[in-house]
Amino acid sequence: MKIFVIGSGNVATHLSCAMLKAGHTIVGVCGRNFGHTQELAKALNAKPFDNISQIPANADIYLISVSDDNIADVAAQMPDVEGVVAHTAGSVPMSALSRFSSHGVLYPLQSFSKSRKIDVSRVPFCIEGNNEQTAETLTTLARSLSNDVRPMTTAQRAQLHIAAVFANNFVNSMYAEAETILKNSDIPFDIMRELIAETASKAAELGPVTAQTGPARRGDSKVMSRQMQSLPDAELQKLYSFVSERIQGRYKPSRN
Amino acid sequence: MKIFVIGSGNVATHLSCAMLKAGHTIVGVCGRNFGHTQELAKALNAKPFDNISQIPANADIYLISVSDDNIADVAAQMPDVEGVVAHTAGSVPMSALSRFSSHGVLYPLQSFSKSRKIDVSRVPFCIEGNNEQTAETLTTLARSLSNDVRPMTTAQRAQLHIAAVFANNFVNSMYAEAETILKNSDIPFDIMRELIAETASKAAELGPVTAQTGPARRGDSKVMSRQMQSLPDAELQKLYSFVSERIQGRYKPSRN
Repeated sequence: MKIFVIGSGNVATHLSCAMLKAGHTIVGVCGRNFGHTQELAKALNAKPFDNISQIPANADIYLISVSDDNIADVAAQMPDVEGVVAHTAGSVPMSALSRFSSHGVLYPLQSFSKSRKIDVSRVPFCIEGNNEQTAETLTTLARSLSNDVRPMTTAQRAQLHIAAVFANNFVNSMYAEAETILKNSDIPFDIMRELIAETASKAAELGPVTAQTGPARRGDSKVMSRQMQSLPDAELQKLYSFVSERIQGRYKPSRN
Repeated sequence: MKIFVIGSGNVATHLSCAMLKAGHTIVGVCGRNFGHTQELAKALNAKPFDNISQIPANADIYLISVSDDNIADVAAQMPDVEGVVAHTAGSVPMSALSRFSSHGVLYPLQSFSKSRKIDVSRVPFCIEGNNEQTAETLTTLARSLSNDVRPMTTAQRAQLHIAAVFANNFVNSMYAEAETILKNSDIPFDIMRELIAETASKAAELGPVTAQTGPARRGDSKVMSRQMQSLPDAELQKLYSFVSERIQGRYKPSRN
């Protein structure tokens, strides 16, 4: 397929490289940061653009990979095009692109960073289209990139995005709390590497409710109060007690 | 070395199998649950015991792998022995074994489950001994099992154990919150697998403070308040706002 990419950030870069590798043609790249855009376009053997209103109308798919807040602006400034226009954002409704007759969403559920390689073929792609043909076109594109492609409504995607905040942002914040505690005792964070890996893979395999262990799961209030007391500050104690209560609530014996 | 194992649970099982594989002799196993004990002893080609006061005095090392609360009891009931007596608990002081002339701790930092294989050679072992020779004996044992062996005081180990609660128990609880949110929208939890794996390996490689992303890190209050409002209940909103504040606090511009 002939794809036009709007955006030159992490998601745009990872996806367009994967699309090129899958045999698609990237006809052009348009981005606000023209330095990044030229660099990316060069890597993709594509034409760089800096004015969104002047992009060509010859692509099968226009993929908008810009920050959530800028999707509406991009959509407003784009020329009328015949191809499918899709964004890649978790929390933006499909309707943000409703001025285009064929519009949809292709949301890859992964945290993309410049410095890290991602195996795109394992990334779940969540697809929505304003009609069956659009959904099919986006599904075909996604299937050429990944083995995990799923239909998903705007409402589901918004919830998935929040779930990802817990499983990614908040999980990482718990790692950061652990790091702070270790630093205070002169223990390097790398000691956590294997525990973190096992925790992740155990939850993925058994499901987190089965995988849960620890004093809160056991209802071991002696250990919990001792650990609370050895935390360095009141805010961390509050966090400890709040998360422990969430865990305990999950394993309360049901009252029959 | 000749090792006597006290306990027949997950840690006792994983460690004693690793010790056997490393060429040590398990001279006996003693546990409260005699069914488990016999089973484990058979697998180890060792003698099963059910009365702790009658265990033989011929071992080089007595490894106490029972629940934290039972370590004191086990220590009180054991006969006087010449060998090194060590427990494997994170949150129990070395001094719990002070009645033995050679005593210490061999704490493997990992979450062991019956159903999951663990590569013990990658597990960090934290060693403490009441004198240099004891520490050396336990270090030699640990080095025969793992490539990651570190000295650690009782005070450090207690903090490490709390850090592990954050990086394991609390991280898993965040996965469980994500699963609940997904369930409400009929999305299977397996969609999270790659994100969870990447989050874990990114934090381990870059450190969690560098790895952090998301609306709280960016200070994007518009997205945060929209996500808060779409959470199903007040407790989950409280958790969302509390963890978000912890993240924001970590990236506050310093006031110079």
